[in-house]
Amino acid sequence: MKTRVAILGYGNLGKGVEAAIAQNEDLELVCVFTRRDPASLTLRTPNVPVCSVEQAPAMRDQIDVLLLCGGSATDLPQQTPNYASMFNVVDSFDTHAKIPEHFARVDAAAKAAGTVALISCGWDPGLFSLARVYANAVLPQGKDETFWGRGVSQGHSDAIRRIEGVQDARQYTVPIQAAVDRVRNGEQPVLTARDKHLRECWVVAAPGADKARIEREIKTMPYYFDEYDTTVTFITQEEMDRDHAALPHGGSVLRGGVTGWNRDHKHTVEFSLKLDSNPEFTGSVLAACARAVHRMAQAGMTGCKTILDVAPAWLSPRSGEDLRAHML
Amino acid sequence: MKTRVAILGYGNLGKGVEAAIAQNEDLELVCVFTRRDPASLTLRTPNVPVCSVEQAPAMRDQIDVLLLCGGSATDLPQQTPNYASMFNVVDSFDTHAKIPEHFARVDAAAKAAGTVALISCGWDPGLFSLARVYANAVLPQGKDETFWGRGVSQGHSDAIRRIEGVQDARQYTVPIQAAVDRVRNGEQPVLTARDKHLRECWVVAAPGADKARIEREIKTMPYYFDEYDTTVTFITQEEMDRDHAALPHGGSVLRGGVTGWNRDHKHTVEFSLKLDSNPEFTGSVLAACARAVHRMAQAGMTGCKTILDVAPAWLSPRSGEDLRAHML
Repeated sequence: MKTRVAILGYGNLGKGVEAAIAQNEDLELVCVFTRRDPASLTLRTPNVPVCSVEQAPAMRDQIDVLLLCGGSATDLPQQTPNYASMFNVVDSFDTHAKIPEHFARVDAAAKAAGTVALISCGWDPGLFSLARVYANAVLPQGKDETFWGRGVSQGHSDAIRRIEGVQDARQYTVPIQAAVDRVRNGEQPVLTARDKHLRECWVVAAPGADKARIEREIKTMPYYFDEYDTTVTFITQEEMDRDHAALPHGGSVLRGGVTGWNRDHKHTVEFSLKLDSNPEFTGSVLAACARAVHRMAQAGMTGCKTILDVAPAWLSPRSGEDLRAHML
Repeated sequence: MKTRVAILGYGNLGKGVEAAIAQNEDLELVCVFTRRDPASLTLRTPNVPVCSVEQAPAMRDQIDVLLLCGGSATDLPQQTPNYASMFNVVDSFDTHAKIPEHFARVDAAAKAAGTVALISCGWDPGLFSLARVYANAVLPQGKDETFWGRGVSQGHSDAIRRIEGVQDARQYTVPIQAAVDRVRNGEQPVLTARDKHLRECWVVAAPGADKARIEREIKTMPYYFDEYDTTVTFITQEEMDRDHAALPHGGSVLRGGVTGWNRDHKHTVEFSLKLDSNPEFTGSVLAACARAVHRMAQAGMTGCKTILDVAPAWLSPRSGEDLRAHML
């Protein structure tokens, strides 16, 4: 009996989830819900309907887990509590500072409805969070560092696009190798934002725009760029479309810690990702989480959860016996 | 209220666990059990008694979790089922091929007694197993590789010591960087044992021993050395004691996988450890596991478990709320 899943939202992430479901034999895509005209979407999966979000409540009995693929800024704060009152849900809410608030609202809705809602799944928050929690539990005396990239930051790309005279932009976050190496070697250095990451900007200027002003506005933008070494390179729209269409990302979570009575034995724990496609990898995490949520619901659990509450075996299609024999 | 733990076995691992407990404010060491004369042991922790293993059954009410620090070859196959019939226990049973058998025996004992037994904790099996399961759940289409080292393999060192004319020996397992790099780059290469690891042997020959024969016997030893490039260097006992007293280890678990409808987006997931002291790090994993086992027992769970059954949050001393706010 396959786990019947549905996707809500068919942007980059929704498409990534769809591709991931096709790689998992125990998952079955029942439908994709959209707020757009369903006739305007063409899925890659054969024989799966596109439905209007209005149809979702009537389809409760046909769906084990609903995967919410909207954005964290405005979609998920509304959607996750709303749909958790009808479905078991998974989301990738990634505004770190607002997770406690989001959790509380989703938890209330899920507990009232007797559903399971797994929030903030992906790689950060998500797999990176796991790496932090495991490393901190094992090495209580130590220091964490997270490096992101080399990869496209949507938020920083959007911030550049809002500057007057910018037609298109792509921002790569680039970890500074010397800093990574110092952490990896267990030095536990004190690092500023500038020490850790470089910001690489590729910009298409509108015809006649003042490039010097655009560059200055980028480099001095508070929070986004002013605390970093930033490079700005102007290119044509053709070059942008040809060379910067992909959405790679990745990064590393490191913890350096010490053990022993003299605290003189150093240990470094590192978890790294190198991803050709951020949305497809994030979608793959969500697909595995759908499996876990279905199992948690079947086990009688309710309420809001995070990946930190999920026993690792629940994410795997393999049985406990199989995992112990072959993966332990 | 602290979790009251006891250690059984005061070798390298038991000492590592003792040091780890001292780093965790929510754990309290109640006593160390030994099969030796208790008067012959001096603990590092002040005011903690050394007791004979015979006293253990009478101390059931004073101990929440018993950490079994014996060896996998002969101690744990007997000890873990035996003590699981009296205590919640944690062990580091690491004979991968025999885990299913060990699990079955421990599970029967723990279920009959209503205790929780967490087996095969450490870093491999343990944290490396977690890395494999997470990466496989997220990337179902892909290939795993595990590299060990640079670190001391006790099993290989012991194998050399059993050769006639060998007074002392230390074997380092060394990952071959070119192979690591190929896997890291997502090439998914086919690698032989020889491609992946080098075996570096440091040997003290007994006076008058035939060094050429010793070297030949090492290099041709089936399973342990014959499938690897092996170096043998003869040193004095003084050099051995001065340069090879530490027990460093580490390694990497990597999974390269593909996503997307054309399977053309590559992803690499890597988990790496660099450890100055294998027994102290393994002991630190066991200490975190003791916390989880106590919580699982309090939640009414019984039977044999592995780290794959443990929700990550249970390993952390921090509350769910705290973890969501600061670690997610």
